[in-house]
Amino acid sequence: MSKPYVIGIDMGGTNTVFGIVDARGVVIASSSIKTQKHNNINDYIDDLYTEIMRLCEANDAMGKIHGIGVGAPNANYYTGIIEGGVNLPWPTPLPFARLLSEKFGIPVAITNDANAAAIGEMTYGAARGLKDFIMITLGTGVGSGIVINGQLVYGHDGFAGELGHTIMKRNNGRLCGCGRTGCLEAYCSATGVARTAREFLEIRSNEPSTLRELDIDSITSKDVYDAAIAGDKLAKDVFEFTGEMLGEAFADFTVFSSPQAIILFGGLAKSGELLLRPLRESMERHMMSIFKGKVKILLSELKEADAAVLGASALGWEAKSSSPIVPMAAPMSPLSTTPNI
Amino acid sequence: MSKPYVIGIDMGGTNTVFGIVDARGVVIASSSIKTQKHNNINDYIDDLYTEIMRLCEANDAMGKIHGIGVGAPNANYYTGIIEGGVNLPWPTPLPFARLLSEKFGIPVAITNDANAAAIGEMTYGAARGLKDFIMITLGTGVGSGIVINGQLVYGHDGFAGELGHTIMKRNNGRLCGCGRTGCLEAYCSATGVARTAREFLEIRSNEPSTLRELDIDSITSKDVYDAAIAGDKLAKDVFEFTGEMLGEAFADFTVFSSPQAIILFGGLAKSGELLLRPLRESMERHMMSIFKGKVKILLSELKEADAAVLGASALGWEAKSSSPIVPMAAPMSPLSTTPNI
Repeated sequence: MSKPYVIGIDMGGTNTVFGIVDARGVVIASSSIKTQKHNNINDYIDDLYTEIMRLCEANDAMGKIHGIGVGAPNANYYTGIIEGGVNLPWPTPLPFARLLSEKFGIPVAITNDANAAAIGEMTYGAARGLKDFIMITLGTGVGSGIVINGQLVYGHDGFAGELGHTIMKRNNGRLCGCGRTGCLEAYCSATGVARTAREFLEIRSNEPSTLRELDIDSITSKDVYDAAIAGDKLAKDVFEFTGEMLGEAFADFTVFSSPQAIILFGGLAKSGELLLRPLRESMERHMMSIFKGKVKILLSELKEADAAVLGASALGWEAKSSSPIVPMAAPMSPLSTTPNI
Repeated sequence: MSKPYVIGIDMGGTNTVFGIVDARGVVIASSSIKTQKHNNINDYIDDLYTEIMRLCEANDAMGKIHGIGVGAPNANYYTGIIEGGVNLPWPTPLPFARLLSEKFGIPVAITNDANAAAIGEMTYGAARGLKDFIMITLGTGVGSGIVINGQLVYGHDGFAGELGHTIMKRNNGRLCGCGRTGCLEAYCSATGVARTAREFLEIRSNEPSTLRELDIDSITSKDVYDAAIAGDKLAKDVFEFTGEMLGEAFADFTVFSSPQAIILFGGLAKSGELLLRPLRESMERHMMSIFKGKVKILLSELKEADAAVLGASALGWEAKSSSPIVPMAAPMSPLSTTPNI
């Protein structure tokens, strides 16, 4: 193969992590820059370019990069545009794939972080060989990447797979970041777990719990996890509640696409049996009979430190210079084009 | 084209309707036999064979049949088997595709009725040119056929697309035919509409309604429709309730696959604005903001009398003699093989 590497870029609101990845999914080298310190998108791209070039030079990867894959919030695979409603320091919609491709002179493909995780898992992780699975990321929010018949589901507009915003509670549901109420994400994300703990502490006011020693407004899912592992009843009940709801949601997802497996990724997924036992039990109990016993719950097999970069990089293999680019209404300020990777 | 026709077979619990269809979706000729009068599957297939051969002879279609497509309850596209839990007079699982293919000597593909409807709509109806849509059949039950990226979603086991069994009411939900409670089908099917009317009549005991003149236990969705069209307030409220719930469900389906359109088919779909107005309003009100205003609600464009046969027949074009056949544990009783269509 003349170009044996891809670049994976995981853009978060705080940091942007990137790495050079080979075809077997080994991260040859990686580094990061601060996302938030760049108020101007051109400065950000210049900085990213400089750092990636440095990494390529240091690792004998100059001229050997097949493509760049990016996982970024609200990134649209079809248009290459990062849409609004995200915690980034630049105006949106932002034609990020085009800007990056012009700067580096190689093909760029972008998608949202959960879709990138699903592609990474299919290429290098627990989903190798699976044609029908759902990736659920349990982090600050609940994200998802859906694979059907071996293909990622983008939907007609590129925004399919927002399973964290399935309504689980139709009356008096919790307010969600999306502006609606009762979404799965409002309950089963890391922040949702902390909200559940606060509700339990305030409603079950007589039950003793070590969580009462903490400032109730600053309780995190990590606090709840630590207390549950130490045997705290109320903290364990929080995980029961969370697993129960995830199981109900997964039973509903199954009637849609009948996946072989649902793969968990992200901080909460590391809670082990504390979450997995109630989740599996609830999923089977709520499952329509023709699907009972068929859907595996798996954990991501990607190394956590590398996972986001690996997931994004996998998209780099399928990046094409002919990726559809939607023309902007107003032209962007010109960027220097230095196609020399 | 050397073989310009396909046979479409729509197998219901009572009747089996079949027809000869050309490539433009014209039903050249059709006929039917009683499903239920055949206690033995071999008798049923012999009878079907005789009638279809007669139809082919009378319409100069002998030797011109490309394949046979069948829509049947719980029919699995991958295995060619009709699974259990259905209202048919024969033991299940039943390797129907193999039996039919052996009898006729041409390729046979089978799927469930809602999937057949989706394929028919994509080939000949309102979904021509659409790559991402969901077909919802509102009949005795609520069925669905999901198309993503131009392909029908079968799931890893062939049973995907049971959206009528999405849970819409998680507490004190109505008992559904699937054995669980709170399914969409228990509320928004034709029988669900009749149940809603009975609930409204019993709970809102003071509200006048022409439906009170009927025997409450035998009220049908048609009675409710007729009363609503005549201006009956309670009957109109039943349609408001039904549309409201369908809209909530469709908003949830959209976060999964982001379809261009949701297409309605079946008896209830003919209720017009009585159902469609509250449905559209509810769907938009419950829609996650990035999807607002994007999903069209369309009505099936297939002629009702032909629709089931057309839908099944469309599958006949893709039937292959190499269709995967799962071997049976015990051999079936032999059938005479007369491959002479």
